[in-house]
Amino acid sequence: MNKPDYAALSVEAHAKTMGKFTIGSKMPLETKDDLAIAYTPGVAAPCEAIAKDPELAYTLTMKGNSVAVVSDGSSVLGLGNIGPMAGLPVMEGKAVLYKKYSGIDAVPIVLASQKADDIVQAVKMIAPTFGGIHLEDIAAPVCFEVERRLIEELDIPVMHDDQHATAIVVTAALTNALKVVGKSFADVTVVVNGAGAAGIAIANLLLDAGVTKMKMLDSRGIIANGREGMNPEKDSLARRINSEGTLGTLAEALRGADVFIGVSKPGLVTQDMVKSMASQPIVFALANPTPEIMPDEAKAAGAAVIATGRSDFPNQVNNVLVYPGLFRGLLDARASRLTSAMKLAAAETLANVVEVPTADLILPSIIDFNPAERIAKSLRNL
Amino acid sequence: MNKPDYAALSVEAHAKTMGKFTIGSKMPLETKDDLAIAYTPGVAAPCEAIAKDPELAYTLTMKGNSVAVVSDGSSVLGLGNIGPMAGLPVMEGKAVLYKKYSGIDAVPIVLASQKADDIVQAVKMIAPTFGGIHLEDIAAPVCFEVERRLIEELDIPVMHDDQHATAIVVTAALTNALKVVGKSFADVTVVVNGAGAAGIAIANLLLDAGVTKMKMLDSRGIIANGREGMNPEKDSLARRINSEGTLGTLAEALRGADVFIGVSKPGLVTQDMVKSMASQPIVFALANPTPEIMPDEAKAAGAAVIATGRSDFPNQVNNVLVYPGLFRGLLDARASRLTSAMKLAAAETLANVVEVPTADLILPSIIDFNPAERIAKSLRNL
Repeated sequence: MNKPDYAALSVEAHAKTMGKFTIGSKMPLETKDDLAIAYTPGVAAPCEAIAKDPELAYTLTMKGNSVAVVSDGSSVLGLGNIGPMAGLPVMEGKAVLYKKYSGIDAVPIVLASQKADDIVQAVKMIAPTFGGIHLEDIAAPVCFEVERRLIEELDIPVMHDDQHATAIVVTAALTNALKVVGKSFADVTVVVNGAGAAGIAIANLLLDAGVTKMKMLDSRGIIANGREGMNPEKDSLARRINSEGTLGTLAEALRGADVFIGVSKPGLVTQDMVKSMASQPIVFALANPTPEIMPDEAKAAGAAVIATGRSDFPNQVNNVLVYPGLFRGLLDARASRLTSAMKLAAAETLANVVEVPTADLILPSIIDFNPAERIAKSLRNL
Repeated sequence: MNKPDYAALSVEAHAKTMGKFTIGSKMPLETKDDLAIAYTPGVAAPCEAIAKDPELAYTLTMKGNSVAVVSDGSSVLGLGNIGPMAGLPVMEGKAVLYKKYSGIDAVPIVLASQKADDIVQAVKMIAPTFGGIHLEDIAAPVCFEVERRLIEELDIPVMHDDQHATAIVVTAALTNALKVVGKSFADVTVVVNGAGAAGIAIANLLLDAGVTKMKMLDSRGIIANGREGMNPEKDSLARRINSEGTLGTLAEALRGADVFIGVSKPGLVTQDMVKSMASQPIVFALANPTPEIMPDEAKAAGAAVIATGRSDFPNQVNNVLVYPGLFRGLLDARASRLTSAMKLAAAETLANVVEVPTADLILPSIIDFNPAERIAKSLRNL
C-alpha cells in the first residue's frame, strides 16, 4: 500500500477549512437573558470582582486555562526561517493539539519581528491574557535570551517547546531504551549532535537526569570553551561536560559511545560510525523529516534501539507527548515557572506509561491521549 | 416579576466555566493519519506554500477569518480604568459574540501597558496572526492616536469599536427615529453630549451622514477652538461645527434642538431641558448602566423617540448590532481599511432591517442575528 500523500492532503484540508483553529463560547448566547449574563449588563460584575482581586482572573476568565503559542517563524519544523505567517499552520496545530490532549485553550500568536527585544516586549504586553506562554520555533540563540528574560520578568510559566518538551520526551525515550539494553544513565557515554535549541536542552536535562559522560557537537565538531563558533549556552555546557577541552569530529566522538542523539541534519551518521559504537548502541536520529541515518541502515549496522521523529517508523519522538500535559500540570498547580524537577518528573512519568519497554516500544503512540493527564498529575504532586 | 440579578448570575456563570472563550479544531485529530495531515509531517506543505505566496495565509490559516479583540482595560464599560485582567470578561464577550453573530474566530488580547507607543507596538507585533484588529475599551485620547497609527502602519483593517461601531448603530437609530418624527438629517439640530471616543465618532459620522447643525459638549460645555480642555480631535470637530466659537451649557445647547445624544453621565438631562427642545424631540440617553435621563421621565417631558443602552427598555443601542457584520464584510472583501462610505452603508443597512420604524422600534433586537450578514453584504458590494 502506498503511503498517503500527506503534503497534498494537508494543503487540501487547510484550504477547505481555512486552517484548524476555531473559537466558541462556553456560555449560551441565545436569549436576552443569556446576553445579559455573558455580556452587558451582567459582565460588569466579574470585571469588578477581578479589579478588586486580580487572582480571580484565574477562575472567572480564560486566563486560568489558556496558553499563548508564540512564534516568530524563524525556525519552523525543518523548514528554517520561513517567517510568521508561513509558520502559522504549525502554531495552529500546536494550539488544537493542546485542546485535544489536555483541554487547554491555546491561542496561536505569530510575531512581526524576530528581534529578541521585540519578542520579549510583545509577549510581556499580551501576558495578562494568558496563564502561560509556550514559545515555539524560535531560532537559537535568540530563543535562549527570549526565554530567560521572559521567565525573569513574567509571573506566569514560560516554556520554549523546542527546548524543554523535546528534552523531556528524549529523556523519557532514553530512560526506556536504557532499560531495553540493560544500561544506566550513570554508566553510558552520550553523544549529542546539534547544539541548537533542542540539543542544548536535551544535553542539560540528561545531565540533570544523571548522565555523567557526554560529548556535544555542533557543525564544527565537539564543543569546547575557547573554540570558534561558541555562544554563552554552548560555553556553559562545555564547562559542564568537557573540562579538558577535547576537540573532535562526529566519527571520533561516536567511537565507543553508547548513545547517539541527533538533532542535526539528514545523513550525517554512517553505518561505520554505528559499528564503531559500544555494544548494543542506542541511536536516536531525530532530524526531520530525514533522519541522520535511516532506521533500517542503523539496524543493519547493529543498533539495538532506534528512534526517529517520523510517524512511519517505531518509536516516534514527538513533543506532543509532553507539552499538553506539562502545561496542564503547570496551570493546575498555578506554578509560576517550570523547574528541572518538574521536567524530570514529566520524563519519568512518560517513560513509565510504557509498562514493558522493548526495542520497538520505548514511547507511547502519539495518538495515546492518556499520558497528558498522568504528566499533569505528576507535576501537581511535586 | 422581579428582574433577574444579572450581576450575581454572571459571576456564578463565569466561575462555573472559567470564562466564556474556548477553542477547538476544525480538522479531526483522532488517528495517526489525522495528525499527519493537520500536524507533522503534512503541515510542512501549507507552511511552504505560504512562504512562497504570503497571500495564501488568508485561505490556508485562521488569518482570513480572525480578529483580535485588543484592550488595555483603560475604559471598560462604565467602570473606567480597571486594567487589562479585569477587562478580560468583556473582551471574551466581544469575541464569542463575533462567533455567534458572524462566524468570526475572534481572540481576546488584553495588554500590560496603557501607553500609546506600547499598544501600537504590541498590536503591530501580533498582527501577522489576524485578518483584522478590533480595539476595545481604550480611553480617549490614547484611543485616537493608537487607531490612527495602526491604520497607517498595518495592511489589515483596524477599528476602535467604541468609536465606530457605536457611531454606526447611533446613526442607524437616528435614521429611523427621524423617519418616526418626519424630520431629516439636513434639517435637525443635533446635540451630542460627551466628547470621548464614542461622542467624537458619533459626531463625525452624523456629519458625514448629512447633519449640518450640531452642538458638541464635553464636561466644560460646548466645545470651541481656543477653549480650555480641548484636544486635537475636539479641535478638528469644533472647526467643522462651531466656526463662530459659541460657548454654552447643556441646558443652553438643548434649547430648540431636535436631537439629544448622550454618551456622558447619569442624570445630566432634566425634564425641563427636554421640554425646552423643538417639537417631537428625540432623546438617546446612552450612558450605561444609568442613562442621562430615565426613559419614563423623558417620555413624560414630551420626548417622541427614546433610546438607551439598556436591555430592559425599548430601542437598545448596542454595538453588537454592528461590529460582527462589519468585520465579516471587511474580511470577506479583504478590505485593508474601514472607510466612511462603509460606515454609512452599514448604518443604512442596519436601519433598513426595521421595515416600519415606530417610536418603540427603531433598531432590531440584539438577539436578531440576521443584520450581521446584511451588513457584511452591504460592505462587500461597495
